[in-house]
Amino acid sequence: MSSTTPPPRGQVTRSDVARYAGVSTAVVSYVVNAGPRPVAAATATRVREAIRVLGYRPNASARALRTGSTRMLGLVVPEIGNPLFAGLAVAVEQTAGRLGHAVLLVNSESDPHIERRLIQSLVSRQVDGIILSTVQYGAAVVDLSTLGVPSVLLNTFEAREGFETVGVDARAGARAGVEHLIEHGHTRVALIIGHSGDAVEAREQGWLDATRAAGLPDGPLVRAPFTRRGGYDAAMRLFDAPVPPSALFASSDMQAVGALRALDELGLRVPDDVAVVCFDGTEEADFATPQLSAVRQPVEEMADEAVLRLVSPREGVAPHHVSFTPLLRTGRSCGCPVRPLDA
Amino acid sequence: MSSTTPPPRGQVTRSDVARYAGVSTAVVSYVVNAGPRPVAAATATRVREAIRVLGYRPNASARALRTGSTRMLGLVVPEIGNPLFAGLAVAVEQTAGRLGHAVLLVNSESDPHIERRLIQSLVSRQVDGIILSTVQYGAAVVDLSTLGVPSVLLNTFEAREGFETVGVDARAGARAGVEHLIEHGHTRVALIIGHSGDAVEAREQGWLDATRAAGLPDGPLVRAPFTRRGGYDAAMRLFDAPVPPSALFASSDMQAVGALRALDELGLRVPDDVAVVCFDGTEEADFATPQLSAVRQPVEEMADEAVLRLVSPREGVAPHHVSFTPLLRTGRSCGCPVRPLDA
Repeated sequence: MSSTTPPPRGQVTRSDVARYAGVSTAVVSYVVNAGPRPVAAATATRVREAIRVLGYRPNASARALRTGSTRMLGLVVPEIGNPLFAGLAVAVEQTAGRLGHAVLLVNSESDPHIERRLIQSLVSRQVDGIILSTVQYGAAVVDLSTLGVPSVLLNTFEAREGFETVGVDARAGARAGVEHLIEHGHTRVALIIGHSGDAVEAREQGWLDATRAAGLPDGPLVRAPFTRRGGYDAAMRLFDAPVPPSALFASSDMQAVGALRALDELGLRVPDDVAVVCFDGTEEADFATPQLSAVRQPVEEMADEAVLRLVSPREGVAPHHVSFTPLLRTGRSCGCPVRPLDA
Repeated sequence: MSSTTPPPRGQVTRSDVARYAGVSTAVVSYVVNAGPRPVAAATATRVREAIRVLGYRPNASARALRTGSTRMLGLVVPEIGNPLFAGLAVAVEQTAGRLGHAVLLVNSESDPHIERRLIQSLVSRQVDGIILSTVQYGAAVVDLSTLGVPSVLLNTFEAREGFETVGVDARAGARAGVEHLIEHGHTRVALIIGHSGDAVEAREQGWLDATRAAGLPDGPLVRAPFTRRGGYDAAMRLFDAPVPPSALFASSDMQAVGALRALDELGLRVPDDVAVVCFDGTEEADFATPQLSAVRQPVEEMADEAVLRLVSPREGVAPHHVSFTPLLRTGRSCGCPVRPLDA
């Protein structure tokens, strides 16, 4: 709150601003909405000065009623503290921003009840579309199909009938990560896998694919939350044993970071005693000690695809699935040389 | 987008829903707005079913025009990928949610031009108030004072005339962290400090306070971005030397994580060769290897205070500053015993 008394609100119109600044009302709109046409810097400064002096507040609610568009997208993530979802959010914001849309970011903390309430809240705020990133495919997804709001499911591993979906081929990615550990000579690769609605999750399937194709018995598995603490607890169960496995594949960076802490407490060295590869490949994996070898999700491409489906839907194209291929980036934790930091 | 054709939009009213569900229009509102009065689960299910069948979409824009409130707060953060700001965002959302407000979270990536545009965008979307967390106090802050929208500056280290401000006593916190390193016997404590608008930043001042009070010469200092990469580069400059300092205070968790990576590459062991303490104390510090000793910002209390100032402003109280005291949590990186993980 400013100590200077603000001018009275709601009485100043766009026309007043245009008159004061000596421009057309269209130019005022371009400045306020940051588009669609460019405005010369000096003119924009004059318009902003007029807005400031007159105390004009452009009214998005009135505009939304008039145009039927709020130029606002909703993004629901399960956990903003997870660097994967923070990275997706930044990428979605940047793409949406370039296309003149703001992003209303909401965070469900993986609670299906909160997720439903947030979606209802976004719909009632008249967002032009919703991007839902969820770890469960329950009531919230059903809501999206009945609420009649354009939507995209982001970070799904497979097609979902009737939905626009964008994700990665997690099964192939996990398989590549586990095959790499097997190439390093490991014959017992443990798995830490997050909880999801699926009976056999794609990353679990990829882990099985790799070990079975190599003629190895299935390694030990622990299900745990997609958190640092989840990875820590799971690694304690897997590796606090007389003959622990010699390798680990973790279904998220955060789980791997937690596992590194557990292995350190158990006196096991990475990669000498236990080699580690994880899934996600955020900057947190890059900066872990030791640096984590990771199967990287291409968050920028995924975000671009999701936003474009909402903002520029292609006529006559039925809802479909786009799957990106995650790439293994080797580093120190699997026994490879250190990967140089990104420029 | 659902494969089932959604019912026609915009023609169904709250009264239609009430009639279909056999309840009053007030009960429909309670379900749609998740309050203020509770609704029995069976009744709420009936109302949701009516909303679904009729294709009703409650119109927040119309309500906003009617009531003058959007029940929406804007939160501007400089970097959502920084776990400190992710933690603040989660805490702000939770407090706002309990008070019936949604949070429009936007991310400036520390770009002052983007920051100004985002604030303008939030104002034009008629948010009830803006919480601004910035690393610079420039044009965006001036905008807030002229735009006439209630606002709080969150994560400021000192009072700003005419503004509601909430933060921590960073000088005292940094001093406590550096004093602890001196108690461990270190006489040369390097500082990695983020860029800010201030000539001598509060954390830098606290570092000076501690070394000077102990009669020690000022240690070496490097200014670097508040990022993992910033900390890495700064530590390379500070410690790739014939006689490197024996201790480091870093102005953020992320910088400290980057410094750990650099020290590891330089073959310096933490805490044996270099003791480290940092400022922020997020979960990332807890799970670093080795675990980081950190001066923790109480993000939950800070968020509560900021949201309450916007949602329940106290009559007749002038804008003022509330400063929380950050607490040192010792861990392995300073040479203390490992701190047990939070329950």
